[in-house]
Amino acid sequence: MLTYRDAGVNIDAAEELLRRLKPLIRSTFTPGVLADIGHFGGFFDARFSDYEHPVLVASTDGVGTKVKLAIRLRIHSTVGQDLVNHCVNDILSCGARPLFFLDYFACGRLDISVAEQVIGGIITACRSNGCALLGGETAEMPSVYAPGEYDLAGTIVGVVEHSHILDGRSIQPGDTLIGLASTGLHTNGYSLAMAALRDHDLETYVPELGSSLGEALLAVHRSYAAMLLPVLQRGLVKGIAHVTGGGILGNLQRILPRGVTAEIAWDAWQVPLLFRYIQHAGAIPEEEMRRVFNLGIGMVLVVAPEHVSEVMALCAEESPVVIGETRRAS
Amino acid sequence: MLTYRDAGVNIDAAEELLRRLKPLIRSTFTPGVLADIGHFGGFFDARFSDYEHPVLVASTDGVGTKVKLAIRLRIHSTVGQDLVNHCVNDILSCGARPLFFLDYFACGRLDISVAEQVIGGIITACRSNGCALLGGETAEMPSVYAPGEYDLAGTIVGVVEHSHILDGRSIQPGDTLIGLASTGLHTNGYSLAMAALRDHDLETYVPELGSSLGEALLAVHRSYAAMLLPVLQRGLVKGIAHVTGGGILGNLQRILPRGVTAEIAWDAWQVPLLFRYIQHAGAIPEEEMRRVFNLGIGMVLVVAPEHVSEVMALCAEESPVVIGETRRAS
Repeated sequence: MLTYRDAGVNIDAAEELLRRLKPLIRSTFTPGVLADIGHFGGFFDARFSDYEHPVLVASTDGVGTKVKLAIRLRIHSTVGQDLVNHCVNDILSCGARPLFFLDYFACGRLDISVAEQVIGGIITACRSNGCALLGGETAEMPSVYAPGEYDLAGTIVGVVEHSHILDGRSIQPGDTLIGLASTGLHTNGYSLAMAALRDHDLETYVPELGSSLGEALLAVHRSYAAMLLPVLQRGLVKGIAHVTGGGILGNLQRILPRGVTAEIAWDAWQVPLLFRYIQHAGAIPEEEMRRVFNLGIGMVLVVAPEHVSEVMALCAEESPVVIGETRRAS
Repeated sequence: MLTYRDAGVNIDAAEELLRRLKPLIRSTFTPGVLADIGHFGGFFDARFSDYEHPVLVASTDGVGTKVKLAIRLRIHSTVGQDLVNHCVNDILSCGARPLFFLDYFACGRLDISVAEQVIGGIITACRSNGCALLGGETAEMPSVYAPGEYDLAGTIVGVVEHSHILDGRSIQPGDTLIGLASTGLHTNGYSLAMAALRDHDLETYVPELGSSLGEALLAVHRSYAAMLLPVLQRGLVKGIAHVTGGGILGNLQRILPRGVTAEIAWDAWQVPLLFRYIQHAGAIPEEEMRRVFNLGIGMVLVVAPEHVSEVMALCAEESPVVIGETRRAS
């Protein structure tokens, strides 16, 4: 005699998890949320009466093999923050502010405590970004994931006024590239980093890093929304590249119009030690480092020369740095 | 000397995949889509001028361990359809029509051909549901998924007029429950089914099923949108339960108001042979079957008695069947 539970799926655990999370999820609800948890979909008011021509901006992402590191270090409360902040930054690069988020958490065996920490991280970041957690799916898939393993993905939806869409169209040769500091690897390059650090102890304190390697690697992917939304509001930025897979240049290329290229002054800022540590451990060529990692620059703003000092002043607390300029492509 | 490729991540393959898929993705674009592929987010017009009070409805889902079966049978072109149709049915249960979809495809090693088939299935279903594929993420995660393994999830966003939201609020004792046929297991209960069929050959033709077990199990989760949207338009339905994990009763409970319960006439329809085959193979108790599987009923419509004959006529091609009624909860 066989039951779902014998087959590795525990519906009761899923229900207990939802019971624990419900009040926390509700705490993320903004005035746009129209219904309670439990229906087949989440409801969000789409009247957007403050907008003349509202445009939705949506993005889906995961946190890559950073989940593997979280599992190895048994620190589950931060990957959810990485996920939400990554998505927030993606739509911020389009000029949009976040409205709502939906998560996908899949695991081999549903450990309520682990799931609570992971989704708790999502809730923390949703709250700090003013983004409602409108829905999600928790999947127990015993044959796909090993016990103790999980994966995590999510989707964000935001809104932008049509005339304020940042698509890089107005970028010209001679615009300035302003870099904003990252907090670490953010959510990219973990497969390479972990291969390079294969034989390293992640839990011992490393004086040069001021933390253990594991802590430095797990640093939360920061959200730039609180800092950048007011800057975008003033129309001071022509384009934003969120530095994810592909590195600084690869991501700038996503927004540069045809005929415009980016020239990076690679010595304009100090690459954080963590990256050099990884590079040294894996003997990774500099070119590969630039293609895979953010190297300390989490966002790049493309700004007309006449607005550079104003933008630098508005972002002053974040130690912005001019990292290059746009050129005519030859 | 180490590179991203040595660490198991092939950026070139990801770029080749996107190159192959771009024209297909574009073929899903509806007039609401405002930008091309490649930016950090997808753009969708949110003016909804045909609506007085537009409400967005969003849902995230996966296809559970049905992916495992697809991988085992080396049939990758249908799970994407399962995913999109599942999501479409979820928001349809809220009264909404689909606007756009975003997918998450994660794998151990990016096999371009497999990924093309999987995402091709998503594109096929997006097109047939009139739903734009607005974005997505393809993640190669060598340490999380074994080579050849993958997982799949997605998020749908749709829209409904506020006064047409289906939330079951108007359901009363004495309403009729109309069942619409499923095409098979849809996307639920695969872990239990595969445990029950552990020792069975999935590829041999089974005369009673008219196909192999594998083919019957992999039957595509159907979308009810084309059939139901006109019925919803006429305001003939008080609530819809999409029969997913939790079975017929479990999902009806998600929409029934307090004080109302559902009474199912379990002998009102013929449970398809596939379910009995699984039940017999695993000696699964009837109660467990009802809690896990759809047993041949993919959607349940809750309809006032005076509208039953009209709804039955509108859905006639789908052989709708009255499967019970609502009662006052004792």
